[in-house]
Amino acid sequence: MPDYQAPLRDMRFVMDELFDYPSHYARLPAGDDVSPDVVAAILEEGARFAREVLLPLNQSGDREGCRLEGGEVKAPSGFREAYRQYVEGGWPSLAAEPEHGGQGLPPSLSMLLSEMICGSNLAWGMYPGLSHGAADALRHHGTEEQQRVYLTKLVEGSWTGTMCLTEPHCGTDLGLIKTRALPQDDGSYRISGTKIFISAGEHDLADNILHLVLAKLPDAPEGSKGISLFLVPKFMPDGQGEAGERNGVVCGSLEHKMGIHGNATCVMNFDGATGYLIGAPNKGLACMFTMMNAARIGVGIQGLGLAEASFQNALAYARDRLQMRALSGPKAPEKAADPIIVHPDVRRMLLTQKAIAEGGRMLVLYTAQLVDVVEQCSAGEERERAETLLGLLTPVVKAFLTELGFEATNEGVQVFGGHGFIQEWGMEQMVRDARITRLYEGTTGIQALDLLGRKVLMNQGESLKVFTKEIHKFCQANADDEAMAPFVGPLAKLNSQWGELTMGIGMKAMSDREEVGAASVDYLMYSGYVTLAYLFARSVKCAREALADSPSDASFYQAKIQTARFYFERLLPRTRTHAAQMQAGAEGLMAMDAASFGLGFEV
Amino acid sequence: MPDYQAPLRDMRFVMDELFDYPSHYARLPAGDDVSPDVVAAILEEGARFAREVLLPLNQSGDREGCRLEGGEVKAPSGFREAYRQYVEGGWPSLAAEPEHGGQGLPPSLSMLLSEMICGSNLAWGMYPGLSHGAADALRHHGTEEQQRVYLTKLVEGSWTGTMCLTEPHCGTDLGLIKTRALPQDDGSYRISGTKIFISAGEHDLADNILHLVLAKLPDAPEGSKGISLFLVPKFMPDGQGEAGERNGVVCGSLEHKMGIHGNATCVMNFDGATGYLIGAPNKGLACMFTMMNAARIGVGIQGLGLAEASFQNALAYARDRLQMRALSGPKAPEKAADPIIVHPDVRRMLLTQKAIAEGGRMLVLYTAQLVDVVEQCSAGEERERAETLLGLLTPVVKAFLTELGFEATNEGVQVFGGHGFIQEWGMEQMVRDARITRLYEGTTGIQALDLLGRKVLMNQGESLKVFTKEIHKFCQANADDEAMAPFVGPLAKLNSQWGELTMGIGMKAMSDREEVGAASVDYLMYSGYVTLAYLFARSVKCAREALADSPSDASFYQAKIQTARFYFERLLPRTRTHAAQMQAGAEGLMAMDAASFGLGFEV
Repeated sequence: MPDYQAPLRDMRFVMDELFDYPSHYARLPAGDDVSPDVVAAILEEGARFAREVLLPLNQSGDREGCRLEGGEVKAPSGFREAYRQYVEGGWPSLAAEPEHGGQGLPPSLSMLLSEMICGSNLAWGMYPGLSHGAADALRHHGTEEQQRVYLTKLVEGSWTGTMCLTEPHCGTDLGLIKTRALPQDDGSYRISGTKIFISAGEHDLADNILHLVLAKLPDAPEGSKGISLFLVPKFMPDGQGEAGERNGVVCGSLEHKMGIHGNATCVMNFDGATGYLIGAPNKGLACMFTMMNAARIGVGIQGLGLAEASFQNALAYARDRLQMRALSGPKAPEKAADPIIVHPDVRRMLLTQKAIAEGGRMLVLYTAQLVDVVEQCSAGEERERAETLLGLLTPVVKAFLTELGFEATNEGVQVFGGHGFIQEWGMEQMVRDARITRLYEGTTGIQALDLLGRKVLMNQGESLKVFTKEIHKFCQANADDEAMAPFVGPLAKLNSQWGELTMGIGMKAMSDREEVGAASVDYLMYSGYVTLAYLFARSVKCAREALADSPSDASFYQAKIQTARFYFERLLPRTRTHAAQMQAGAEGLMAMDAASFGLGFEV
Repeated sequence: MPDYQAPLRDMRFVMDELFDYPSHYARLPAGDDVSPDVVAAILEEGARFAREVLLPLNQSGDREGCRLEGGEVKAPSGFREAYRQYVEGGWPSLAAEPEHGGQGLPPSLSMLLSEMICGSNLAWGMYPGLSHGAADALRHHGTEEQQRVYLTKLVEGSWTGTMCLTEPHCGTDLGLIKTRALPQDDGSYRISGTKIFISAGEHDLADNILHLVLAKLPDAPEGSKGISLFLVPKFMPDGQGEAGERNGVVCGSLEHKMGIHGNATCVMNFDGATGYLIGAPNKGLACMFTMMNAARIGVGIQGLGLAEASFQNALAYARDRLQMRALSGPKAPEKAADPIIVHPDVRRMLLTQKAIAEGGRMLVLYTAQLVDVVEQCSAGEERERAETLLGLLTPVVKAFLTELGFEATNEGVQVFGGHGFIQEWGMEQMVRDARITRLYEGTTGIQALDLLGRKVLMNQGESLKVFTKEIHKFCQANADDEAMAPFVGPLAKLNSQWGELTMGIGMKAMSDREEVGAASVDYLMYSGYVTLAYLFARSVKCAREALADSPSDASFYQAKIQTARFYFERLLPRTRTHAAQMQAGAEGLMAMDAASFGLGFEV
């Protein structure tokens, strides 16, 4: 069975040393409650929960899957008990506001916990995972009563939430949805329609499930401007506010999926179910994006968690498995062969995983500080800046980290050779589980359009400039440091190329909108690589400063610099390809007639 | 359920128009039997068999899997009957020699059939698939009697073969095998040991199974110089040459795998089983490579087959699925939304698949001509040249086409969005099935070492020069053709860079052998992309010539040119990254202490 240890040492490096979280936390309203001791205790307890409670259920959950019996879904054995412990440990309320029963701690702490959950048991994590989004929607758009009746239940974890967006004929294009909401005299609505791909749509972990459902009012405008958001509880709250009568929403079937077998992916049938409007009529899409943005970062963290898990197990295998001698001569002459970690190509794969995990962690924790500020600081210049950067980086976190997370889990299989393909080792499950992250909450293609179209070009690159200026400043501040030159040199070049590429696409897009779609995925990947290069360069500076004090764990900091070097030498060159490809333009993509694509095989 | 149509039109283009197979066949000894009509009939009948017999069993076989009951393996429903039809159709004997009961047709025809089988049902294809390797070993290294008793059975298909190499503690490093062979007075051997990952090691499709087993003689030298090859039948032939008494080899268990569930991957226990030496004592590794090289090309074809299958289904979905309007305005205003094939990023994914499938097909059929010459022409300059090129290209076909095949199947899932993750659609099965191809018969890393270490550097790049010279000649011959400039220009540059990169690594490797392993995978991928660039450039020239005659199917040829353009603009730029990465050298990979890799998480 695969092992998983929360990478606490690396988390502490990124938090305490690289991004100075102690000062960051001190500046937050809840600052006094977030002492380094509290943070350390939370992380350690989270690590224990992940390894001792969730990890043992990961492979068994994959094998057992979920069962639908008489409209009720049974999650795999042990999932319910693990959820009970999760609630008992107070985890759901960690970052929620005190007025809703939360502990008021910064969201970043919750994101660190997410990484641990995703690394140990992604399928389980998707049960409480969607509650965050539902809670966000209620917090931002719910009435006071809705918050009192429903949000508090989500915060305490006794009820969970879902996001019901997709329908059989539409996922990306929500303007096409057919689910209807009929107003009732009592101010409620009767919701009818079918939603698919509803993660944790039905299960036996919690007492009640709150569905946040996109639907159309009778008089709604066409398309995405006519969508409203509704709250549809599985059980209506009774007089005591507990789960009461059954509402008209049932799970029609479970999807059979490539991975995350332990999570119930449901077809949900709404048959005149009672629902309540959240936010204003026809403004559901905006409310949905409140849920969606948090969920997107959450999915990026899934990519990170799986990359770390795969790396840890591939590393253990590579140290243990004896196969062939090193090309430069035996390294373990006393053994029948050398451990495969001596082979440069095995190291290339391991370092790829390591760089993805550690780079991804820096990106997530950089973003997490922005989330803290956006969520907990009062309005002002700092929060505005954080909102801008968060908007820019959200699609990058989502798509870039899931693309790389999938790559990392595949490298993990590859390190194991044929054994990687065998279920027993658990490496192939990580690939199957990771595969969904590139798809749900908006595919990589959708994230790329969001980044290039909405976040970058729509404001003439102003948001991007906020970020590239920050990188530029870092480069300038370290321009004279010779030891930093191998990092700052390439970074500075790529950073200015980023602006040039953006301008180039923007110019072309003025005469042909297809240019945006033609460049977008390469643009997103390029953006991701440059962003990680910036963070790796900062990590080198930070590690060098630490080394100057001759610490007892010098090898940790040396490894940091070596990993950054690997990243710059072996992953960052991918920007060359992405730059060339995004400059190729739309013509070559659009030239072929749709009818001609299949002429090689169509009879 | 996914569909699959053998891409006959494209196969004919590559065979008849691009590589002039009619003349090629005419020059072979069996030339008279390989008229264009015969070829057409074989391809059409193969296409029918793949689509009508194999395809309907692909999803059901994945779901049902194999069962081990009392030492006997039951293949999924329908597999046995399909195999009966396969034998009845004479397919196993297609390319075998007449003296062993074969039809003596060129191996290339068999490779075309393989693509169809892999595209429609890879798991099924792995039952007869291993027989080819076993037959090759017997043909090249078996005694006349062994050929008469055993090879003829493989050729007629009533018996199948396996390759028993891997053991629990060794796969790549066969010098470590522990299986023993004790000589008996009657000239036979008693084989004892455990082999794992034995594809089709036990099943109910054929009357008997012939295991080709690597084992060590009592007095064998250490390591890979002390390995011998043995033939171990499941049932000993009786007086009539039919399956008689049970031999001491049984299937101990079946592996639970990520994919190819329909194929039985067996742990085989040899307990004093009777075996016969194939070839000379202690020369088993050379005999094994006879099997292995054919098998490696076969696995490359699996990557191709799955790429094509995934492409066909993604294309159908992209034409059908309505989602969003084109960025440049509605393309199907009469519908609720545009089919997603209008979106440039969806086209990018489809064209990636198409280019991989069509490029892969060109590479396989280029290689297939070499196989024909090596197998069927008498010794001489042409055969020597073909042997050189075949040796060079075998690891490229194996690794490059499986890496790209896996990418293509993943693009197929991505085109389907969330539906791609659902088993019902069949797209995720292709990913799971494709995943093994990067691993078995030598991982990508092993192929890369074979290419760079053995095939290129060991003879100072002489073999490579045979190929780069051919490319150079093509570039020179088309240097003045302006229409060819966008293809010939980049190709010529990359072709000379290929030589320079090779020389650079060779120089570095003289002082540090690790440089070979550090560069090898990037080198292999680079080699693959340049090779496809050459073949795509030739396809453009060929298509342009066809267009000059104003054919009725002009759009087919236009699409050929458009696909090549896409390849040059959108896939070939990956060479930039691979070139940069392979030049980064070994130091950055070797610097980190094995102990330091895990410092971020190890407690």
